[in-house]
Amino acid sequence: MTNLATCTGTLTIDLNALTANWRLLKDRMNGGDCGASIKANAYGLGADLAAKALYAAGCRHFFVALLNEGISLRQSLAPVGNEAAIHVLCGPQTDGGKATMAACIEHQLTPVLNSLEDIAAWKKFDPAAPADIHIDTGMLRLGLAPDQLALLESEPERINGLNISHVLSHLASADESDSPQNSQQLQDFHRALKLFPGIPASFSNSSALFLKTDYQFDLARPGSALYGINPTPDKPNPMAQVVRLQGKILQVRDVDTPQSVGYGATHAIRRKGRVATVGVGYADGYLRSLSNKGFGFLGTYRVPLVGRVSMDLITFDVTDLPEGIAVPGAMIDLIGPDVTVDDVAAAADTIGYEILTGLGNRYHRIYLGGDGQ
Amino acid sequence: MTNLATCTGTLTIDLNALTANWRLLKDRMNGGDCGASIKANAYGLGADLAAKALYAAGCRHFFVALLNEGISLRQSLAPVGNEAAIHVLCGPQTDGGKATMAACIEHQLTPVLNSLEDIAAWKKFDPAAPADIHIDTGMLRLGLAPDQLALLESEPERINGLNISHVLSHLASADESDSPQNSQQLQDFHRALKLFPGIPASFSNSSALFLKTDYQFDLARPGSALYGINPTPDKPNPMAQVVRLQGKILQVRDVDTPQSVGYGATHAIRRKGRVATVGVGYADGYLRSLSNKGFGFLGTYRVPLVGRVSMDLITFDVTDLPEGIAVPGAMIDLIGPDVTVDDVAAAADTIGYEILTGLGNRYHRIYLGGDGQ
Repeated sequence: MTNLATCTGTLTIDLNALTANWRLLKDRMNGGDCGASIKANAYGLGADLAAKALYAAGCRHFFVALLNEGISLRQSLAPVGNEAAIHVLCGPQTDGGKATMAACIEHQLTPVLNSLEDIAAWKKFDPAAPADIHIDTGMLRLGLAPDQLALLESEPERINGLNISHVLSHLASADESDSPQNSQQLQDFHRALKLFPGIPASFSNSSALFLKTDYQFDLARPGSALYGINPTPDKPNPMAQVVRLQGKILQVRDVDTPQSVGYGATHAIRRKGRVATVGVGYADGYLRSLSNKGFGFLGTYRVPLVGRVSMDLITFDVTDLPEGIAVPGAMIDLIGPDVTVDDVAAAADTIGYEILTGLGNRYHRIYLGGDGQ
Repeated sequence: MTNLATCTGTLTIDLNALTANWRLLKDRMNGGDCGASIKANAYGLGADLAAKALYAAGCRHFFVALLNEGISLRQSLAPVGNEAAIHVLCGPQTDGGKATMAACIEHQLTPVLNSLEDIAAWKKFDPAAPADIHIDTGMLRLGLAPDQLALLESEPERINGLNISHVLSHLASADESDSPQNSQQLQDFHRALKLFPGIPASFSNSSALFLKTDYQFDLARPGSALYGINPTPDKPNPMAQVVRLQGKILQVRDVDTPQSVGYGATHAIRRKGRVATVGVGYADGYLRSLSNKGFGFLGTYRVPLVGRVSMDLITFDVTDLPEGIAVPGAMIDLIGPDVTVDDVAAAADTIGYEILTGLGNRYHRIYLGGDGQ
C-alpha cells in the first residue's frame, strides 16, 4: 500500500519547472547574479529538494528568514556542494548573545545585519566572517533606518574592518510597476550605497526583475516567481507552474430534494443535482475564505466549491458533469493547469504566497525532476 | 544553544489544560462516554502528545480524519496502552481496493462506513472487524443519505453480520443553540437509529455538549473545546486556554517623520512613534487577513498590528508603551491570556479551528504537563 492510498490529497512539485523559472529570471539579469529566496521551506514546497535542484542548476545564493532555516539548508546542501552562500534575513539574533552568532560561523551562514546594534555585536564577535547589511528604504520593518544611516555617515568607523558580502534593501510595491514608491526606494538605496563603496548590492525581488534594469544591481533574490506566482500581475504570467494540488473524491451524493450543504447551512441546493465531497480542508491550507468561492477542475470540467470549507473536507457541485466522471477515487485539481496559484489566491482574497506557504502536511507529496529523476 | 534562540516564535501547549477540558466535557455527559477528536494533528497542536495525555486521563475513543492519521496514532498509543478505539472518519477508502481495508485491520482502526458501497465492501472483506456507520442528517458531505437509508430499511440484510461499533451523525449548526437545524437533525438521527437497534450512537461535538442532554447519546466526540475554543460563542468561554503563541521582537524603530509600513504601504504612521517588528508571519499560520486588524499583548499592554502581515514578519505599533518594554528579544503574545484563539479568529474573520490547524512548523514548541512533567 502506498502512502498515496491512505492520503486524500496529492501535492506534485515540479522541480524542473522550478529550475526553468530560475533560469528565466537569471536570464533577465543584465550581467548580475541571480539567487533564490527559499525561506519558509521554499514557500511551502520543500527547501531541501528545491535548494538541491537550484544548486544543480547553478544557483549559489540562497536566502532564508530564520537562523534555523539556514542551519537546515546548510545540512541539505552539504552533500551536493559547499559553494553556496546562505543569507539569513532575520539576522544573527544578537539580542540572544554569542551562541546565535557562533551558530552562523559554525554553519557558514551569512547573517543580514539589520541595525547598528547588530553591526556592533558582529564586529565585536567576528568581523572577518561575511555578513550582509540591510538598509530599510520603505518597509519600516527590518534594516537600518534613515537616522541610523545618518549616524553611520558621520561615524563610518562603525563598519571598518567588516567583511560585508552584500548591501541589501527590499521593495514594498514592486508588483505595482507604476507605483511611485519604487523610484523613491531606488533613489534612497543609491544614496545609502555611497556609504559602502565597492560592496555588491542586492535589491530585486521577483517583480523587480520585470521593472527597468536600474533595479537589478549585482544580485537578485527572487522568490515567488520561482514557484510559479505571476511577478507581473497586470500581464500574462511568464512563469511555469510548479505546483499541482489534487484532492480525492470520497463520496458523491445525489440531491433530489432541496438541501443545505455544510456548516452553518450557507449554501442551498435548490435543483436536482450532485455534490462531490473531497478529502481536503482548511487544515490542509485550503483556506476557509474559499467557502462558496473556490473552484476546481475535474479533467476539463470546472466545478464550483459549494458550502463552507471544513477542516478536512470540501464539497463541489458536479451536477453538470457527464455520468462516470465525478466518482469516488477521482482527483479534482485544486491547483493545476486550469486553476493557478494566483487564481486560488484571488478567490480567497489573498496572495499566492499565502496559498503556497499554507500547504499542509497531510498531502502525499510527489517531486518531479531534480534528484528524483 | 537551544532551539528557542534560533526560532523567533514560541508555541506553548498546556497538556494539563487539555486534559482538564476533556474532564469538564466528560462530566457534562449524563452517563455516556466521552471521546476526543484529534484529527488534523490534534487541531495543529500535536496528536502524539495530546493523545497520550488524553489516554492517561482516561479517554478511550479517538477520532481522526484520515487513515494515515489513524496509523500514526496507533503507533503513538502503542507504548501507553492498547485499549483505545481509533475511529477513522473518512473511512476505509474502499475505492482504493483491499489494501486500505487491510491497513485498518493491521492497525486496529475502526473505519467509519460512509455509504452503502463502503458497507458492502467492508462486509465482504471482514464483517467481524469493528466499523462505524455514519448517517448524514444535514451536512450533505459524508454519510448515508436519506435514499440510502430507505434502501437499507427495505434491505436490512445489507448490514447482517456486521460488527458495528457505533452509529454516528454530525451536527451542522450546534454552535448556534437556537438553530432549528439542530432539532431537525436530532429527529432524523432518531429515525435512522431504529435501523440499528442496540448499537451505541455518537452525535455530540463540543457545542452539542452544551445543548440539551437529548443530544448526548452514548459517546461524545468533542474537538474544538478540548483545545480551548469557546463551544458557546454567545456566552463566556467555560474552557481553559491550551495555547500560548509568542513572537519575538527583532527590531524596534523610531519614526520621526510620516512613513508607510510594509507591503503596498497600507498603513501610514502619521505621528511620532515606534514600530516593533516580530519574527512571525503568514508562513507561520498567522493569517494575512489579520493585516491592520490583529493585535497582541506585551505584558499588560495591548499592541495593535499595523501594516500587512508578511511571510515572516509582522509589525506592531508600540508608541504608547513605556521605555524599555518593547525591546529586541521581548516576546509579544499573539495568542495568550489576553488574546484568545477566538479573539484572533474574530480579527481574521474566521473560526478558531482554522487558527489552530494553521499553526506552522517554525515555532519552538514547548509542552507543559503530560509525559513531559
